[in-house]
Amino acid sequence: MNKVNLLEKFALFSDQWSPKIIGQVGDMHIKLGRIQGQFEWHSHENEDELFYVIEGRMTLRFRDRDVVLEPGEFITVPRGVEHMPVSEGETKIMMIEPAGTVNTGDNASQRTVTPEWI
Amino acid sequence: MNKVNLLEKFALFSDQWSPKIIGQVGDMHIKLGRIQGQFEWHSHENEDELFYVIEGRMTLRFRDRDVVLEPGEFITVPRGVEHMPVSEGETKIMMIEPAGTVNTGDNASQRTVTPEWI
Repeated sequence: MNKVNLLEKFALFSDQWSPKIIGQVGDMHIKLGRIQGQFEWHSHENEDELFYVIEGRMTLRFRDRDVVLEPGEFITVPRGVEHMPVSEGETKIMMIEPAGTVNTGDNASQRTVTPEWI
Repeated sequence: MNKVNLLEKFALFSDQWSPKIIGQVGDMHIKLGRIQGQFEWHSHENEDELFYVIEGRMTLRFRDRDVVLEPGEFITVPRGVEHMPVSEGETKIMMIEPAGTVNTGDNASQRTVTPEWI
């Protein structure tokens, strides 16, 4: 039961689109990610996913609209809803999602990664 | 499915020790709180509870030690572990915990509140 400092954790990795696990509450993992450029369209059949911006700015694209998130803002993407994260510069984000959630959702691709604890 | 801005939500309330619900992911509620002074010893038999400091500084007292949290830091208090939040000045915190978690834990008291959505 130790405290976690987000900036210290961000300093431990530099790879983008590769979420790291930094904590857990109940069945939820707390993850950090560095994102830049465009991900891919995907959805999670069984998992809600919360995106919270720490630094930078990201756009969450949905099929019917875009949502821009600035630092201190979050959105929960409900299970089943297609989305694609996009960021022009590098953005640092925190995610809250059930343990076992796959970054590319229900379709494995070359961008699928297994998150590690840091 | 709208985004949530934490500072805008904090501006909607001023009462202390009265968590407000601002979001949900899976079965977890995302809550904001303003705390100042000393709460009371309690534990949650079935719920983990994550405390994340947005602004200010808080101390989480445990029976065997204290943990000081600064902005950008969090800790998960596992179910069953006695704890008491303390803050000299007003501190703004975000909490992540299962929906239905009671602020005073397993023992109702005069400080028990039913959180509302804002």
